[in-house]
Amino acid sequence: MPRMKAAIFVEPGRIVLDEKPIPDVGPLDALIRITTTTICGTDVHILKGEYPVARGLTIGHEPVGIIEKLGSAVRGYREGQRVIAGAITPSGHSAACLCGCHSQDGAGTTHGWKPMGGWRFGNTVDGCQAEFVLVPDAMANLAPVPDGLTDEQVLMCPDIMSTGFSGAESGRIRIGDTVAVFAQGPIGLCATAGARLMGATTIIAVEGVPERMEMARRMGADHVVDFTKADPVDEIRRLTDGRGVDVSIEALGRQQTFEASLRVLRPGGTLSSLGVYSGDLRIPLDGFLAGLGDHTIRTTLCPGGKERMRRLMEVIASGRVDTRPLVTHRFKLDQIEEAYELFGHQRDGVLKVAITP
Amino acid sequence: MPRMKAAIFVEPGRIVLDEKPIPDVGPLDALIRITTTTICGTDVHILKGEYPVARGLTIGHEPVGIIEKLGSAVRGYREGQRVIAGAITPSGHSAACLCGCHSQDGAGTTHGWKPMGGWRFGNTVDGCQAEFVLVPDAMANLAPVPDGLTDEQVLMCPDIMSTGFSGAESGRIRIGDTVAVFAQGPIGLCATAGARLMGATTIIAVEGVPERMEMARRMGADHVVDFTKADPVDEIRRLTDGRGVDVSIEALGRQQTFEASLRVLRPGGTLSSLGVYSGDLRIPLDGFLAGLGDHTIRTTLCPGGKERMRRLMEVIASGRVDTRPLVTHRFKLDQIEEAYELFGHQRDGVLKVAITP
Amino acid sequence: MPRMKAAIFVEPGRIVLDEKPIPDVGPLDALIRITTTTICGTDVHILKGEYPVARGLTIGHEPVGIIEKLGSAVRGYREGQRVIAGAITPSGHSAACLCGCHSQDGAGTTHGWKPMGGWRFGNTVDGCQAEFVLVPDAMANLAPVPDGLTDEQVLMCPDIMSTGFSGAESGRIRIGDTVAVFAQGPIGLCATAGARLMGATTIIAVEGVPERMEMARRMGADHVVDFTKADPVDEIRRLTDGRGVDVSIEALGRQQTFEASLRVLRPGGTLSSLGVYSGDLRIPLDGFLAGLGDHTIRTTLCPGGKERMRRLMEVIASGRVDTRPLVTHRFKLDQIEEAYELFGHQRDGVLKVAITP
Amino acid sequence: MPRMKAAIFVEPGRIVLDEKPIPDVGPLDALIRITTTTICGTDVHILKGEYPVARGLTIGHEPVGIIEKLGSAVRGYREGQRVIAGAITPSGHSAACLCGCHSQDGAGTTHGWKPMGGWRFGNTVDGCQAEFVLVPDAMANLAPVPDGLTDEQVLMCPDIMSTGFSGAESGRIRIGDTVAVFAQGPIGLCATAGARLMGATTIIAVEGVPERMEMARRMGADHVVDFTKADPVDEIRRLTDGRGVDVSIEALGRQQTFEASLRVLRPGGTLSSLGVYSGDLRIPLDGFLAGLGDHTIRTTLCPGGKERMRRLMEVIASGRVDTRPLVTHRFKLDQIEEAYELFGHQRDGVLKVAITP
Repeated sequence: MPRMKAAIFVEPGRIVLDEKPIPDVGPLDALIRITTTTICGTDVHILKGEYPVARGLTIGHEPVGIIEKLGSAVRGYREGQRVIAGAITPSGHSAACLCGCHSQDGAGTTHGWKPMGGWRFGNTVDGCQAEFVLVPDAMANLAPVPDGLTDEQVLMCPDIMSTGFSGAESGRIRIGDTVAVFAQGPIGLCATAGARLMGATTIIAVEGVPERMEMARRMGADHVVDFTKADPVDEIRRLTDGRGVDVSIEALGRQQTFEASLRVLRPGGTLSSLGVYSGDLRIPLDGFLAGLGDHTIRTTLCPGGKERMRRLMEVIASGRVDTRPLVTHRFKLDQIEEAYELFGHQRDGVLKVAITP
Repeated sequence: MPRMKAAIFVEPGRIVLDEKPIPDVGPLDALIRITTTTICGTDVHILKGEYPVARGLTIGHEPVGIIEKLGSAVRGYREGQRVIAGAITPSGHSAACLCGCHSQDGAGTTHGWKPMGGWRFGNTVDGCQAEFVLVPDAMANLAPVPDGLTDEQVLMCPDIMSTGFSGAESGRIRIGDTVAVFAQGPIGLCATAGARLMGATTIIAVEGVPERMEMARRMGADHVVDFTKADPVDEIRRLTDGRGVDVSIEALGRQQTFEASLRVLRPGGTLSSLGVYSGDLRIPLDGFLAGLGDHTIRTTLCPGGKERMRRLMEVIASGRVDTRPLVTHRFKLDQIEEAYELFGHQRDGVLKVAITP
Repeated sequence: MPRMKAAIFVEPGRIVLDEKPIPDVGPLDALIRITTTTICGTDVHILKGEYPVARGLTIGHEPVGIIEKLGSAVRGYREGQRVIAGAITPSGHSAACLCGCHSQDGAGTTHGWKPMGGWRFGNTVDGCQAEFVLVPDAMANLAPVPDGLTDEQVLMCPDIMSTGFSGAESGRIRIGDTVAVFAQGPIGLCATAGARLMGATTIIAVEGVPERMEMARRMGADHVVDFTKADPVDEIRRLTDGRGVDVSIEALGRQQTFEASLRVLRPGGTLSSLGVYSGDLRIPLDGFLAGLGDHTIRTTLCPGGKERMRRLMEVIASGRVDTRPLVTHRFKLDQIEEAYELFGHQRDGVLKVAITP
Repeated sequence: MPRMKAAIFVEPGRIVLDEKPIPDVGPLDALIRITTTTICGTDVHILKGEYPVARGLTIGHEPVGIIEKLGSAVRGYREGQRVIAGAITPSGHSAACLCGCHSQDGAGTTHGWKPMGGWRFGNTVDGCQAEFVLVPDAMANLAPVPDGLTDEQVLMCPDIMSTGFSGAESGRIRIGDTVAVFAQGPIGLCATAGARLMGATTIIAVEGVPERMEMARRMGADHVVDFTKADPVDEIRRLTDGRGVDVSIEALGRQQTFEASLRVLRPGGTLSSLGVYSGDLRIPLDGFLAGLGDHTIRTTLCPGGKERMRRLMEVIASGRVDTRPLVTHRFKLDQIEEAYELFGHQRDGVLKVAITP
């Protein structure tokens, strides 16, 4: 049985590169030979034991690669084709999927809904920080990479760009909106780019790290508020003449940013939340206008499926957004433990790393 | 090879009951033993040669039955289970499906979109006026029938009710709307019921056949305009004090009703079209306000998939709508040619027939 | 200067009937002679000093009456006409109004947005627990009462029905939805009726008072969960086979019901909040799926304006909903202190009172 | 009584510069001293007698100017302030306005809806090709021009940009969409810019005039199809690999472009129509998929009101779109007949003219 290298969760604090068998290909699956992948903030949560997964699981949910083998029932692809798949790999046939709620895919449950059920790679099935990954429900998930795009150009599509853009989309941004984006890590930066792409005309990014502040401008921010120097709620109120923003996007996952996101909203505004929170959240009575402010709070888990991937790659191919600057460091799969070390501690101005087997 | 009886399209003007092999079950299919089915207006178009299908095809797209055999890759069902499937049987994995546009499913095409591609039964694959039908992509399409509901109670779900309700849904009816529904055949009657179900407070049905006018009231119409006695556009203008309706639903498929549906709209209103048209349509300049009326015209092909079916059966199970009165005649499968004769000529006050093998 | 009787806020704990001048009529105003009004839960908050208003203000925001005098610039009405106005009286011309967010009307501010700015009666201008009330921006707010409807039939339209229905509307209820409504006071009961009106097929009301439980069934609930006997979260999970509800409506304004409303949601579901909260709210991490559940939380302040009122009166006139059973007690304006005493302490099974000058 | 110069419709074929009294200012009005205005294609229709208006009416609906005098009831502005108003000047208080359908404002009618009722300037009241214009319902319509923007920078906001962008907005363009825009006159060019602003990644403009083709690229088109050299339907099918476009925008008002707009749609796509048609339209059966294609056809009349104007000026101020290149010729008000001559015959590569009193 042929074997491959894979980054495996051993126990909290330990993800190691080890060998495991190359998986068998079921009728609806596709086996992908990974050419480039990356590490996500969520993977670091897993590493730290903050998000529990099974021991022995291969980590990683952002695959770029080549079709090695197709399942017997898979139609519409050919081996050797260059593809990506989303971090979320919906089945397409659950009640949740048929309602368009692919991330909460409940395939296999009686009623068809399962919390975060669409997130399988590196969560409930082996992921893609490996030489090969098995893509389930391949016909719903494999998206061919357009000619002329490099691996690194599309590397943000499976998760970072899909999640970041969804922050803007779930905020229902309209032409002429004023938008605040809290935190300018990779996802926040893509939320900023997404807000720009949807026609927001005043985009206020909140960040404290100089390199990220600079990158925020590059991705489309009109104003960058340095939260280490001023209270962002006050600053945003000032920048909007006391009106507040139409939409605020939370891209960090902390009480402080969640609360600030709510406080800067105009009445009737929308808080679009992308953060993964690690404790109960508090909604301040005044920021919420005691429940009388016609507010909307909406959370979004990374949209997936091949059509989503196609659209995101179109954004890249059309030149509307360029996410290459987000890739600040490069490693071989053999060096992945080193990559976790750098990325997990946010050293050396890292935004995203590219891992190539 | 075991054989079964099936209503087969031979040539324009001839649908006959004949024998053909019971189909083999592929990995994603389910074989259903039909217990009740019906004839649709579309089937009559096929019979007349107005809608072309392959010779030898089994007709029919409204199945109620029992799972006889499941494909090797199908999970979540058991043989012997009582189910329905929609007239539209989406794959779940095409670009169209992933966009929520199941009826235009392009599974098998390069780009994933195909006009009416979700309509397969009795159109591009064998249908269900037979002893058995093969349901493709079974996991996306089989909907278990709740205990306590009879075959006839759910017989309208696969097409008539799904299509009729979609007329109201695509019209985005809101609480307090005034709605006109043109024609009160089975689909128009369900559109009337759907408008009622969504909170329209003035529902004006247009019809000329006394039994259907009576049935329109039973399904929720507040006013019934007899088009044989008065001009419906004038009548509706009068009933709405010159304002027009918020939403009009076209449920016949003729120039005259399409045009009237547009003329009765208030500015900013929506024409929700369910009709299958047989020629070019004309939009009258004045009814369209020269393109300056903020009008919406939306067409809808019967929504399908198991979740849609589940919801419609919930409507029945909750007692909100009762479609049993629509079944006016009953036939054995052996008598199906007789049933086509009656239904095709709209004899004897027929609304819908029930066919039982 | 002619004087009138009015219920006036004196200080926390004291609302008294006193005399004040009948107001002058500005160019855009209308003076209404009140024929029937009522007391709202919010008025009790004011009475208790929990919601601060100016001393000397006339309380009340639910007027039914007759046009006594029209401002010089008001067109389209005549004196003697029977009308209602909503609890929220938008100007129509602020940025908020032009965006359709009438309740947050910021007329008079630089940028056009003001938290709860559309709520003027008994909050920032004199209200309608009086012999006369001045309706500002009359052309946007006066809604003629259709012939044949009594005062008590339309008495719930200005606030209770508008707010209750908005719970269902902001939840974007669709045909076939399962909906939970927490608390069956007057607003919760109207939320139940609204859910029914929009096509929900399983409506689960949560309440503990027997009369309200009974009324919940009458307004359309399919199941009523007695929270004094069982944990409503467990019960709703059980009733939905573990799936949860598509939409939950919070109609009380407490941490406990807010939290339960979130916990009973399926992934991707919507919490529609109507409650007026009196402290910070806590979002439980698990109920919120750590921010990854594709949830929506939406708050709504009573929609107002004459078109809203017209639509609600259409609901009454069409017989779709009958809110008369909500009026359990009747008082003369002279007895209003007694009415506050009864209503404020929820004595004698009171739901709503009718006050007639 | 002081008099002013104004471009007056005398009879079909004759718009002349003449004198008329400066109008009196009613309580809700504002008198604006025009500093810059322009001529619209609609004005040419009026000139030719194709769109009937009253003889003696001042033409023009695109005002930039300075507040000369405010009505007695107008609050929130000061004389001397620089403002624009939209071509559509909603009252804010009709049923249509309260429903957000400002262009169909029925202020003054019983039921509150009037076809195109929001279009008053140069249609039902005196317009702005004059030294002064009276803005009705000033509080809903006057939008202060941000400091630093010139008259010509905001001159397209009242109509051209508002209409053009609405073509993209009514098409509900999403990130990654493929969009076709038929005709690249001023409105089509703004539709192209709007599609870009909303995140379309493939924008195909159809035009035959070289200067306009060039301008289309400048405004954001990715492809420009020269309809004089190839059939645009074929070309667009080819460019989209047979899939068709998600949204097509009709910006000319002819049968040919309307029909082509429909034929290039993918199933489930939206035709967003901006054209003013001059005869009945024909919907081709095949392009409409016989009514089974889940298509949407939506028409939009220029959105107006001060909030719309504010948002459009934000687009300009933020540098997202620059419409200055659309102003190709400049005239004094005294030369307006000459300007009509040039613009009406589309001479000298004219796109838009600027008129300054």
